[in-house]
Amino acid sequence: MSHVAEIIAVGTELLLGNTANTDAQMLSRELSALGINVFYHTVVGDNPSRLHDAVEIAGRRADILITTGGLGPTCDDLTKTVLAQSFGKKLVFDQKSADRITAFFTEIGREMTPNNLQQAMLPEGCTVFDNDWGTAPGCAFEARGHHVIMLPGPPRECTAMFRYRAIPYLRELSDGCIVSRTVHIFGIGEASLEALLRDKMNAMENPTLAPYAKEGEVELRITARAADEEAGAALIEPVEKMLRELLGHKIYGVDVPSLEAVCLGLLRDKSLTLGAAESCTGGLFAKRMTDLSGASTVFRGGIVSYTSEIKRDVLGVPQEMLDAYGPVSEPVVRAMAEGARRVLGCDLAVAVTGVAGPDPDERGNPVGLVFVALQTAEGCHVRKLSAGHGRTRVRNLATNHCFDLVRRYLTGQLLD
Amino acid sequence: MSHVAEIIAVGTELLLGNTANTDAQMLSRELSALGINVFYHTVVGDNPSRLHDAVEIAGRRADILITTGGLGPTCDDLTKTVLAQSFGKKLVFDQKSADRITAFFTEIGREMTPNNLQQAMLPEGCTVFDNDWGTAPGCAFEARGHHVIMLPGPPRECTAMFRYRAIPYLRELSDGCIVSRTVHIFGIGEASLEALLRDKMNAMENPTLAPYAKEGEVELRITARAADEEAGAALIEPVEKMLRELLGHKIYGVDVPSLEAVCLGLLRDKSLTLGAAESCTGGLFAKRMTDLSGASTVFRGGIVSYTSEIKRDVLGVPQEMLDAYGPVSEPVVRAMAEGARRVLGCDLAVAVTGVAGPDPDERGNPVGLVFVALQTAEGCHVRKLSAGHGRTRVRNLATNHCFDLVRRYLTGQLLD
Repeated sequence: MSHVAEIIAVGTELLLGNTANTDAQMLSRELSALGINVFYHTVVGDNPSRLHDAVEIAGRRADILITTGGLGPTCDDLTKTVLAQSFGKKLVFDQKSADRITAFFTEIGREMTPNNLQQAMLPEGCTVFDNDWGTAPGCAFEARGHHVIMLPGPPRECTAMFRYRAIPYLRELSDGCIVSRTVHIFGIGEASLEALLRDKMNAMENPTLAPYAKEGEVELRITARAADEEAGAALIEPVEKMLRELLGHKIYGVDVPSLEAVCLGLLRDKSLTLGAAESCTGGLFAKRMTDLSGASTVFRGGIVSYTSEIKRDVLGVPQEMLDAYGPVSEPVVRAMAEGARRVLGCDLAVAVTGVAGPDPDERGNPVGLVFVALQTAEGCHVRKLSAGHGRTRVRNLATNHCFDLVRRYLTGQLLD
Repeated sequence: MSHVAEIIAVGTELLLGNTANTDAQMLSRELSALGINVFYHTVVGDNPSRLHDAVEIAGRRADILITTGGLGPTCDDLTKTVLAQSFGKKLVFDQKSADRITAFFTEIGREMTPNNLQQAMLPEGCTVFDNDWGTAPGCAFEARGHHVIMLPGPPRECTAMFRYRAIPYLRELSDGCIVSRTVHIFGIGEASLEALLRDKMNAMENPTLAPYAKEGEVELRITARAADEEAGAALIEPVEKMLRELLGHKIYGVDVPSLEAVCLGLLRDKSLTLGAAESCTGGLFAKRMTDLSGASTVFRGGIVSYTSEIKRDVLGVPQEMLDAYGPVSEPVVRAMAEGARRVLGCDLAVAVTGVAGPDPDERGNPVGLVFVALQTAEGCHVRKLSAGHGRTRVRNLATNHCFDLVRRYLTGQLLD
């Protein structure tokens, strides 16, 4: 298929800057993975005539129009009204949608105001997208050589509705199916990875391979078009194998949510507990661990030792060591990890100390110098990092390295 | 002035969904504060003919065109080339910009490739916007009844260039000036605040009053148009006074960066130190505190006591108390705060324990039940919260309440 989609986001709050257009980002990523081109995004306010104009313009440059927002009762179901009119469709009452909306309000125990039933008015002959994540149903229809897809605006609803309702609809437009897999990598920069893979990526047509950089880590998405899921998986297999050979232990997972989630799973599988002693990251490691529900099954706690006194009095780092080497040093990070394991009573303890910036520390250690350590029953593993500049970057990268130590230890790869 | 602006973001990475269009959000907010309407955002890739078309369309519906992105050497300075062509301008070499670019590379100690000097080619007769935050200069010119403003794409550069270069340019377009002030509020929901202020907001024309909701807090922006700064400030004064009378201690600052930054400032002024004992927030309080550079002058550290053993062994909460009341209880939060103050050796200690979810705790306490406490030399202040649902929301709100306790104590308002 060689379709072109345009994303039209409807909402005055976007034009006032109250929210960022994250729906368009999410849809662009998903459409790109489906092999559908996107040449423009448009944002327009809750204004019928301006929306009408935007739809006219988009219709001339794309064959798939995807709208987000403007479906609820607060905006008089603006989007459906205008899109139906633009494509010469009548709005008709959909009893099933009305029943679902009524049931939704019963379930959350709130009274339904009558204007909510306006949401059950849908373009005649459309495919209704049931909304299991909110009240406004979405829909899709074909008219005048275009496919029109309407999704609700709240990001959680938009994401779920696209994934579970729109993608199956879009798949029917093509002859086969799209299968994709995301390989998560830590320990190599985006630039080096691109240099390593550029020739391979350029030579590939099906499947395709696309990198996405995140703070301190990189994802590679492999996307295949094939007759069915199985054939798609067969196309992806050799590319994944090639990446595993090339990147080895730098791959921390395939289709996983995050480095910390991988650590949580590994700790759970092995029934091991974890604790942390943090200096320059100031609680970020513990915060990221406990962002995950279920963290309490493996994570016991942490000590944020932002001063030397706490390193000494709570973690038991000897004063002479602090005096001799300074708080940002290999001996101190080892003593912190050992102390955290003892004080917190956990199987594994990470420790981190470094200079987050903006200024070098009193001993003249540069911004970005960080030591991370993992203390286990058998011993201690230390990494010394130059985490670059920028307080946020230094703290994130240091935290990623702590998680990476845990992951590598639990998968038997802690050798470098 | 009654100008209409359109924001055109240039960058294929936006159409691939690699990044969200946060520049458009920032610009929309700033333009709205300046009283300039925005009816559309457009996003277009690194493609000259599509950008040309987007500019044509935008020119028919706005008199101020603001572009972001497409200025650097990697995209062949696409935006400048196309915009100059669209408005019949030649690009000419600007020696001063060339000198600045050369100096930038010298300063960061990297070799400059010749294509970087392409960035010094600018539309003839334009106002050059010096870029103190990167290499690509921005610019503005007037032609064919339009004002065209070009800004670099990286958000940090775009924000600074708009604030310090474009706003002064835009102010000259109007007869007077725009003065705005943001009032930061914690302790009242957006809906209640809107209900309280709706009539007043609707009746106001100059200054205007607009609310922005953030996680668990609200901002109110007062914007006045006047002949000069002083006259603008005079218009704002009575509105700020009215808000102070209406909201009292719920206002935590005017034009301040965050609740934690206010706390940091207050602690510094009074030379007091702070520590934290965190259960359900799992390090989020310490993380937010240490996000701020300079935190080490007042923040000593924290204990993330995710298990009862750590509450007992590290913080000294009596086992009998944990058995009798459970870890999520008022007596335990008091003992945690008292223990944290002692163990961390700080003047003030906050403590938080609660049920972040997704499930109720073993004793059947519901998700969102949270106790926060502040221990000072004089005594302990406790708040019991129903922080609603959703792990992220519960944790953020609980943390905000901890900061709010600190702020209120330090400003002598800890009475409710």
